[in-house]
Amino acid sequence: MPPTSTPESIHIGADDLPFVEIGDGSLLKVLQVKKGEGLWIIENVFQAGYEVDKHRHTGPVFGYTTSGAWKYKEYDYVNRAGSFLYEPAGSIHTLQCVEDDTRVWFQMYGANINLDADGNIASVVDGTSALEYYLALCKEKGYGEPNVLVE
Amino acid sequence: MPPTSTPESIHIGADDLPFVEIGDGSLLKVLQVKKGEGLWIIENVFQAGYEVDKHRHTGPVFGYTTSGAWKYKEYDYVNRAGSFLYEPAGSIHTLQCVEDDTRVWFQMYGANINLDADGNIASVVDGTSALEYYLALCKEKGYGEPNVLVE
Amino acid sequence: MPPTSTPESIHIGADDLPFVEIGDGSLLKVLQVKKGEGLWIIENVFQAGYEVDKHRHTGPVFGYTTSGAWKYKEYDYVNRAGSFLYEPAGSIHTLQCVEDDTRVWFQMYGANINLDADGNIASVVDGTSALEYYLALCKEKGYGEPNVLVE
Amino acid sequence: MPPTSTPESIHIGADDLPFVEIGDGSLLKVLQVKKGEGLWIIENVFQAGYEVDKHRHTGPVFGYTTSGAWKYKEYDYVNRAGSFLYEPAGSIHTLQCVEDDTRVWFQMYGANINLDADGNIASVVDGTSALEYYLALCKEKGYGEPNVLVE
Repeated sequence: MPPTSTPESIHIGADDLPFVEIGDGSLLKVLQVKKGEGLWIIENVFQAGYEVDKHRHTGPVFGYTTSGAWKYKEYDYVNRAGSFLYEPAGSIHTLQCVEDDTRVWFQMYGANINLDADGNIASVVDGTSALEYYLALCKEKGYGEPNVLVE
Repeated sequence: MPPTSTPESIHIGADDLPFVEIGDGSLLKVLQVKKGEGLWIIENVFQAGYEVDKHRHTGPVFGYTTSGAWKYKEYDYVNRAGSFLYEPAGSIHTLQCVEDDTRVWFQMYGANINLDADGNIASVVDGTSALEYYLALCKEKGYGEPNVLVE
Repeated sequence: MPPTSTPESIHIGADDLPFVEIGDGSLLKVLQVKKGEGLWIIENVFQAGYEVDKHRHTGPVFGYTTSGAWKYKEYDYVNRAGSFLYEPAGSIHTLQCVEDDTRVWFQMYGANINLDADGNIASVVDGTSALEYYLALCKEKGYGEPNVLVE
Repeated sequence: MPPTSTPESIHIGADDLPFVEIGDGSLLKVLQVKKGEGLWIIENVFQAGYEVDKHRHTGPVFGYTTSGAWKYKEYDYVNRAGSFLYEPAGSIHTLQCVEDDTRVWFQMYGANINLDADGNIASVVDGTSALEYYLALCKEKGYGEPNVLVE
């Protein structure tokens, strides 16, 4: 039973997809979404002071930082160029950007369950909703329909 | 670079772990939880009329039915002995048991986001919370600490 | 960012896909293949004495047995109706069927690397090759193209 | 059933783990291995001319390039700083480094099945064997036992 199909590896260059602004000069790009798997891979450029609501992950997350500095309020360590971060399913944290032009890839499985100050669920974000948000902003900005890897 | 470690395959026989009651004679057994992956594998025995709240999955789910009959309110098909069910991440449904002694294994990734009648989030259940619930009921019933595969 | 797409859960009933013979009355059905993920879900009916070559898995495997009896030569435990089996990536074993009409679902990630008596690699089987093999046998038997869940 | 356990996110800074040489000045660092999942995450620094044997993947692979230039012989595109690469399970290719100090993170599921010029299987590398290789080189160089994320 030799395999006869050889699927292609797919490359997305640094400038192949546009960034959209998500507030105060911080940026978002969605690279890949496997809807049925709950997988979403994004790249962010954050500016100092940008915050992402406290959230809990329902699957594992892997963060690859390439410039700048950011941290979680709940931890002391700071992610800088070359940092790798592993966030197991169930982990909870609040992202804060420390330096301008902080660049990070996040490979995420499952949803972000956003929590309010009392720990109640405020909202849920996942790959499908992030993709729709990204595509809507791209359309609004006149960027057309970017070639995100979607299945 | 030959691999030198050979991990063991682990068997859980039909009677190795106890069932606990989850209401009206319906039963739950938790077989395996990989907390960091968000994976949970359970076995249920449902009685006719049992319902599981409408919920959305944040990861893929695979259902293996071995007896009885159950369905989702949102679909016409009925799961019976020998049925396989694939639920992609993002799918939403309300489980209803149709016949007594309906037996199903569910291999689930991510969380169940339970929704109320208006579609608002009522609660979230995941592998970690299901495990804690199961272990607490086992303890209460005097079953000791069952040997669930936990990592 | 509310999710607006709700994918369907897909049901495959016990008789929706044909079994094909894989030798000495043992049977194979392929239910689902996610080629890019390396996921393959099959159902086997083995007859007593049937063996599967010694192999190593490159991803995790989950086995759900519903009738009969089978074991791995390397272990003492016997899988019977209601048995759950977890095989971590890297595990190595040789399947032997003990009783006729032994029925098992296997949810497998990655490839089976088949090993000869000296531990050398004899061949590799994965979801894509298993699917091609299954579809070819179905065609040969005049079963048409069965509706396997393929992506 | 509220989750009561909150696992930690784990940070590995750029200088927390040593690189080891894998030939001609090219380097390897192993960041995380989940043996049972078949997951391995590594970082490479390749020098121009370095090649990785032609291989087929048994699970999906994700590549994040942060400097330099590299390509697969089988494709025209070149991975540079900011490139993202998705390699589905089953994909086959031969890595060539084009520029010195080419830096890439690879998040890999499953094994690399190395193929010789005739397409026969020459060897298999996976997370467990890569980890053992890395730890042995670290020990040989007097780096002690680096704190790789292993489970």
